Amino acid sequence: MNILLLTSGITLDQLSHVIKTFDLSADNQFYFNGRSMDDRNLAEMDIVFGWDAKVMSKLLNMKHARLKWVQAYSAGVDYYPLTQLANRKILLSNVSGIHAEPIAENVLGMILSFYRGLHTAAANQVQQQWQAPNTPLTLASGKQMVIFGTGHIGSRIAELAQAFKIQVIGVNRSGHPVKAFPQTTAMTQVDSDLLKKTDIIVNALPLTPDTKGFYNRDFFKLAANRPLFVSIGRGPSTVTNDLVEALQAGQLGGAALDVTDPEPLPADNPLWTMPNVIITPHISGLYQNYLHDAFAIFAENLHQFKTTGTLAKNEINLKTGY
Amino acid sequence: MNILLLTSGITLDQLSHVIKTFDLSADNQFYFNGRSMDDRNLAEMDIVFGWDAKVMSKLLNMKHARLKWVQAYSAGVDYYPLTQLANRKILLSNVSGIHAEPIAENVLGMILSFYRGLHTAAANQVQQQWQAPNTPLTLASGKQMVIFGTGHIGSRIAELAQAFKIQVIGVNRSGHPVKAFPQTTAMTQVDSDLLKKTDIIVNALPLTPDTKGFYNRDFFKLAANRPLFVSIGRGPSTVTNDLVEALQAGQLGGAALDVTDPEPLPADNPLWTMPNVIITPHISGLYQNYLHDAFAIFAENLHQFKTTGTLAKNEINLKTGY
Repeated sequence: MNILLLTSGITLDQLSHVIKTFDLSADNQFYFNGRSMDDRNLAEMDIVFGWDAKVMSKLLNMKHARLKWVQAYSAGVDYYPLTQLANRKILLSNVSGIHAEPIAENVLGMILSFYRGLHTAAANQVQQQWQAPNTPLTLASGKQMVIFGTGHIGSRIAELAQAFKIQVIGVNRSGHPVKAFPQTTAMTQVDSDLLKKTDIIVNALPLTPDTKGFYNRDFFKLAANRPLFVSIGRGPSTVTNDLVEALQAGQLGGAALDVTDPEPLPADNPLWTMPNVIITPHISGLYQNYLHDAFAIFAENLHQFKTTGTLAKNEINLKTGY
Repeated sequence: MNILLLTSGITLDQLSHVIKTFDLSADNQFYFNGRSMDDRNLAEMDIVFGWDAKVMSKLLNMKHARLKWVQAYSAGVDYYPLTQLANRKILLSNVSGIHAEPIAENVLGMILSFYRGLHTAAANQVQQQWQAPNTPLTLASGKQMVIFGTGHIGSRIAELAQAFKIQVIGVNRSGHPVKAFPQTTAMTQVDSDLLKKTDIIVNALPLTPDTKGFYNRDFFKLAANRPLFVSIGRGPSTVTNDLVEALQAGQLGGAALDVTDPEPLPADNPLWTMPNVIITPHISGLYQNYLHDAFAIFAENLHQFKTTGTLAKNEINLKTGY
């Protein structure tokens, strides 16, 4: 198989290391420089790993390209042209699953930072100031949390939250039960009754036409207990201006954002300087073994793809987008 | 009973509220202004709640003072004159137990901040910079932790750490088993074998003659895996200069300090500006219901003290200091 690696930010050494680790070099040919590749070579690629807007656009507009499968290097695949892939019968898979642990750790870390004044203390530390935070310190224990999204990530957040004696409710499309959640409800049932007592709202939804702009003015108005809004899904699920207004109006008690719209968040956005807002630069899913664990999924898929033309795991439904 | 409240930083309103909540005003007389009280009145106090160096010194040097019991407003009682209290047969109790949840949440919050880059992100946020932390992001999951102190606080830290799939070993005086710990060892067994693979060292020890200066150059040299040193016990258990040197030499991978020696930590101490050091200003035990929960212990003790002259819970052994 000819495999084109579109992975900016990963060194050749790192890629060589994982290719060797999973023993993939024997009967596959790996290509690294998609942008400098001529059309004839590009058309001979069977598989793409990763993403590059220019190269993917070129490839998908070629009449005779051999491309049959794209393995994303992320959980969210909202940035891929799903309809175009579907029309050309190209499979798409993600690396969902490997993000659950790092993102859940990040979410708990942000929640604890918020309640325990660690975020404020870090800002004071920059000033070399030994000064108690001027917000009341409280406990995560006993709080109520609603998690939107009950997949790998939402489930691990739910497990960890319950270790802290946080009461958890999960929200998913149909309200179907999910093991890690003592209670779930359907997206269509989200109303002021659900959200009025909530202390923490977590966005762990994928970005799809249904979830774009879901967290807007009307949504934030449903909350009555000044909750902390935690977002680790995708930025465009939230209407940024409405979030700013909800914080300014005190409808929300705070926000902890690993994803924003747009990214990077412009330096003049008011969110940066609000004392009750924690911002991390879309890092919650990252960890040292990410490439290794992503390649483990890719290798398993590659093995099956070569024999049957199908994928072992993590195939995306190109209609729903997840 | 005549009860003298020595509680700077707590308003009269707050004190009135808890006295009312626990219905303590009927057959007790509460006094608030210890420093302006004349000697004759001071001598008639049966009970002291809290701490004030001047007032306590005066009281303990009076020949005919009635004082029989001091209820501390903290878990650590290292700042009380234990020998003098013992000589005058005055009981001392603390509010140990109520700190376990807030301090354990703080410890996990600091650990997650360290591994997930939240502390660095908070410093970048002050600069309004969307910039990935330049330290490798890693997981708490899979790490090894040694907790010094297996009481309420150490136990709750152990429980929460294990929810994050952290492997935990507890250290206490005799090495006796403790429910929350899968493994415990004795203080005398602490050697390079115990500490060589450790990723996280937690100080949850009380300050006593045995623990003063325990975390010193020789101790830090036992670690081989560049651990994170987390301290939420008392500052003087750690030799500050030795800690700075261990960080500078890379023997430690980082430090997360809620307690320091001295406090406040002077603005020119190098710990403030080390990127791998998290400092919070001795706030890890605080939370909104602290006064209420402390008074719940005091009220239970008061009830028994009035009938039997003994305490229901949390009496300090004035020889060991905890």
